[in-house]
Amino acid sequence: MRVSVIGGSGVGAETYERAVEVGRLLGERGHTVVCGGLTGVMEAVCKGASGTGAETIGILPGEDRDAANEWVVTPIATGLGHARNSLVVCNGDAVVAIDGAAGTLSELGLALAFHRPIAGLGTHEIDLEGFEAVGTPIEAVEHVERTVEER
Amino acid sequence: MRVSVIGGSGVGAETYERAVEVGRLLGERGHTVVCGGLTGVMEAVCKGASGTGAETIGILPGEDRDAANEWVVTPIATGLGHARNSLVVCNGDAVVAIDGAAGTLSELGLALAFHRPIAGLGTHEIDLEGFEAVGTPIEAVEHVERTVEER
Amino acid sequence: MRVSVIGGSGVGAETYERAVEVGRLLGERGHTVVCGGLTGVMEAVCKGASGTGAETIGILPGEDRDAANEWVVTPIATGLGHARNSLVVCNGDAVVAIDGAAGTLSELGLALAFHRPIAGLGTHEIDLEGFEAVGTPIEAVEHVERTVEER
Amino acid sequence: MRVSVIGGSGVGAETYERAVEVGRLLGERGHTVVCGGLTGVMEAVCKGASGTGAETIGILPGEDRDAANEWVVTPIATGLGHARNSLVVCNGDAVVAIDGAAGTLSELGLALAFHRPIAGLGTHEIDLEGFEAVGTPIEAVEHVERTVEER
Repeated sequence: MRVSVIGGSGVGAETYERAVEVGRLLGERGHTVVCGGLTGVMEAVCKGASGTGAETIGILPGEDRDAANEWVVTPIATGLGHARNSLVVCNGDAVVAIDGAAGTLSELGLALAFHRPIAGLGTHEIDLEGFEAVGTPIEAVEHVERTVEER
Repeated sequence: MRVSVIGGSGVGAETYERAVEVGRLLGERGHTVVCGGLTGVMEAVCKGASGTGAETIGILPGEDRDAANEWVVTPIATGLGHARNSLVVCNGDAVVAIDGAAGTLSELGLALAFHRPIAGLGTHEIDLEGFEAVGTPIEAVEHVERTVEER
Repeated sequence: MRVSVIGGSGVGAETYERAVEVGRLLGERGHTVVCGGLTGVMEAVCKGASGTGAETIGILPGEDRDAANEWVVTPIATGLGHARNSLVVCNGDAVVAIDGAAGTLSELGLALAFHRPIAGLGTHEIDLEGFEAVGTPIEAVEHVERTVEER
Repeated sequence: MRVSVIGGSGVGAETYERAVEVGRLLGERGHTVVCGGLTGVMEAVCKGASGTGAETIGILPGEDRDAANEWVVTPIATGLGHARNSLVVCNGDAVVAIDGAAGTLSELGLALAFHRPIAGLGTHEIDLEGFEAVGTPIEAVEHVERTVEER
């Protein structure tokens, strides 16, 4: 399946490593990673997935697909600015959120509007059905796998 | 100035009346109301503003501007679906959020991404700079007026 | 009704005056002008309409509504870049096209995709049903009035 | 490189075969095909490319990526309606246009607005710099290869 991974564009080393681990796990289990294509969590998750040969799709805010980080296999330029956040979550079957600020918050809301299940790893606490806080990368991946399967 | 008012599309009578009051206050003080153009809070705020002769702009998700509620003076059709949420908050100088679920959560995040100050009235609790929880319609309106003036 | 007026952002004096005349005629006959909000034909048509007290809506490519020309009454910021062209034609009941290059060509195609009747005044020659080449501003305005009424 | 192929969603057998041939040639020469992901020319070009193992990206107007034709390898859902046409041409380095009506006309205009070179094969005649009418699939492919290389 496809999993959209959302999170901060500027993150510390620990968060970066968690996102690498999420990407690695998703790739090893045969999933495609969708993200916003830029830095921070977006970069880390693509880096982690790339070691497994997984497909990574980066849906960019700008018109230039060369703005994607180096581990994005398939960059998609949109030129839509913040409105591209809608496409990032719409293109996954489920969402893993890691850390993040305002942009990530908007993607959490959009993901729930699209009825995508979300596993939250050290991100905003959301009190809406469909959001589940988890503690580790493997819990995040297992949560979204199980939830999509049950639907 | 322009104030984007965001909130639930299906709300109870008490929330509806609060949104009418927010619209009335904004209109009386010479502000333009921007909203998503549909039902619930979006309808109530336009209804409240319309009694004062204020301009109300409804930025709709669909392609048909006749989908706007009857108190929208200037409907804007977008055909963008959930991606139109970005335009709703981008077109205000500040935001008042009332109640709401996933769509409203996405607009809160987008508003902060666009650096718009937000007054929250019985909506999601957001722990990010720029968001202020308030208790009444007049506090919401005074908060956004004061914050925009100080900038 | 609402008429979207599309055309070049950089035009000569004669074309500018024709666009002013189209705006004046639309305004005098009670119509609202929709355009892309910037320079050239977009500016001229708003200028012409503004003298009649008509409403003018400028749907902008960027995120800053202050980028609108001074005769736009209601600027709408989109942040969508070229994708905003779709909104410009979607928000009119009919289209008048004056001069123009690539952007205008895209709007002609989008207008026909939305089934909007078009009057073309010195613009691209389009061989598709719904497009009518006309010779003067008054012919353009009468064509769109008649076509919308017949529908 | 990436080549966006645009054209009619409902086409006759001869046009369909030409689009298959364009897809096959692009794939054989190592290019990625980008298209709107639906029927007609969009389907044919993906079908032609798929026999060569090439990557095909389908950028869809709706929110459901299962709407893509069966030869699309990487579907991207947008939910943007006609506004997605902008993304179709923005994501190619060059464009091949085959047949087509209003939607294709809009994409021709958008492609030129994004400064993408176009080879036109039995499509609208465009009198703007950057558009070149060609007679056969191989001429179309060689034209876009040569033009992108020269830039």
